Amino acid sequence: MVDIKSALADNARAVNDFLDGLLPMTSDPEARVIEAMRYAAMSGGKRIRPFLVTAGAALFDVTPSYALRVAAAVELVHCYSLVHDDLPAMDDDELRRGLPTVHVKFGEATAILAGDALLTLAFEVLAQPATHSDPRVRSDLVVELARAAGAEGMVGGQMLDLLAEHHRLSEQEVTRLQRLKTGALIGFACISGAILGKASDSARAALHAYAHDLGLAFQIVDDLLDVEGDPSEVGKNTGKDEAAGKATFVTLLGPERARHQSAMLAEQAIRHLDMFSDDADPLRGLARFVVNRRN
Amino acid sequence: MVDIKSALADNARAVNDFLDGLLPMTSDPEARVIEAMRYAAMSGGKRIRPFLVTAGAALFDVTPSYALRVAAAVELVHCYSLVHDDLPAMDDDELRRGLPTVHVKFGEATAILAGDALLTLAFEVLAQPATHSDPRVRSDLVVELARAAGAEGMVGGQMLDLLAEHHRLSEQEVTRLQRLKTGALIGFACISGAILGKASDSARAALHAYAHDLGLAFQIVDDLLDVEGDPSEVGKNTGKDEAAGKATFVTLLGPERARHQSAMLAEQAIRHLDMFSDDADPLRGLARFVVNRRN
Repeated sequence: MVDIKSALADNARAVNDFLDGLLPMTSDPEARVIEAMRYAAMSGGKRIRPFLVTAGAALFDVTPSYALRVAAAVELVHCYSLVHDDLPAMDDDELRRGLPTVHVKFGEATAILAGDALLTLAFEVLAQPATHSDPRVRSDLVVELARAAGAEGMVGGQMLDLLAEHHRLSEQEVTRLQRLKTGALIGFACISGAILGKASDSARAALHAYAHDLGLAFQIVDDLLDVEGDPSEVGKNTGKDEAAGKATFVTLLGPERARHQSAMLAEQAIRHLDMFSDDADPLRGLARFVVNRRN
Repeated sequence: MVDIKSALADNARAVNDFLDGLLPMTSDPEARVIEAMRYAAMSGGKRIRPFLVTAGAALFDVTPSYALRVAAAVELVHCYSLVHDDLPAMDDDELRRGLPTVHVKFGEATAILAGDALLTLAFEVLAQPATHSDPRVRSDLVVELARAAGAEGMVGGQMLDLLAEHHRLSEQEVTRLQRLKTGALIGFACISGAILGKASDSARAALHAYAHDLGLAFQIVDDLLDVEGDPSEVGKNTGKDEAAGKATFVTLLGPERARHQSAMLAEQAIRHLDMFSDDADPLRGLARFVVNRRN
């Protein structure tokens, strides 16, 4: 058995060290934006997406330093999305990972810029020669991350989320929203190791299917924590979906069926990994961890 | 002699057509963000940065369809920066190219997302195989554009601009601000043709030097138009720098010296092109156009 908590912690430490080196403070006056980027990127989190990258890459004997760079790039995109989503014009959140959000701490303008620069930096990291000796792999990573993050991925999902304030969504619509908003980036994280390792199409398809079910399970638990979680444990204000009158998996299914569904999806995700040996145990362990987490 | 106005118009038409195809409207509910992206990207403008890309690429016999894609990517980044800079939390502008700004038309949240997606799309376009047969070139383009756009480039410059509201800048500081805020992307536009054409280091250095002087000249004229321009001609509200108490080249040098300086910089930019034949006439013509423009 994999000790998933310590595997996550080890991976998070490596990602944090990499990000620390990537965002050096300077004495230049514009370094305020780098300060805000550091605040956004280094204030903790479980680093689940980077873990998916490195655990996926391990299946194909990818050079660990390559996987770490892609893991960091995915986390930069995730952090940028949190900074922008938390803005007053968007979800207007003041607390994130138990700390004031970036715009509360640095002001709105700096938060917008810090998000922009985190997103930009992610692509720079992917395209640099240190990410893979084969430039075709680097270009492929850029294309796939851009698709996952852009208007037909994460940004499209956030757009749907904003529109949902004016229109009560069906279960099908909520599923689509989440597939874009959180699923697309989780999908990239899960297949990026296969891109780095030039894996077979069938391996890539298996990881894609794993990501699909994992992403939904993850989101259902997020919705449950928003209803049932303790803000001090979850690290952000809870009850927000309900207050906003938003349809979520919990409002649509009820908490019991939602919890059952998340467990079922996690098991289904694990079954997609059958073609892999016990090298995939970290991915299996993560699927179980995700549905049992308390924050 | 090059007819620079018609050359600009021809190039703008090609860029517009490309962007039109790149941003197809769909019936998906999240297409509202694509509508906002189209509004931001296709509402005109002289397309000076794309022109620099294609005029630079023509020096090295680059396949025109490659150059067009890079030109469009640069314009996407430029348009994203305008959308975010115009936001209420930033420069709070309501008029751009004679039309309501994106956040006035679509709301702040959609404007933030549209900017994010335009930036993301630029990297997708660069990294796709159609941009160059050699993936190393595509990766290099992504790295260089990310540097030009990120915290040590355009975003850094906008950060300085925001800080300038609380601190009166010296001429040296204004120069640095503009080198980052507008100069970095103009610099990428000018050297991208050399990257596409795998040009010599000396050719690249010459284009970099041209970009440096052109960028400053461009900005000085922008500052002059903010003071002396007619809003209906300039297409945006004028007098904003003065109202904000910001130091600009005009407040620092006075309008007469500023105009003289811009003309001198344009001539200096042109001299950097001496190593090129009359193939560089469009770049020479553009430098003269930039300092003589009325909007």
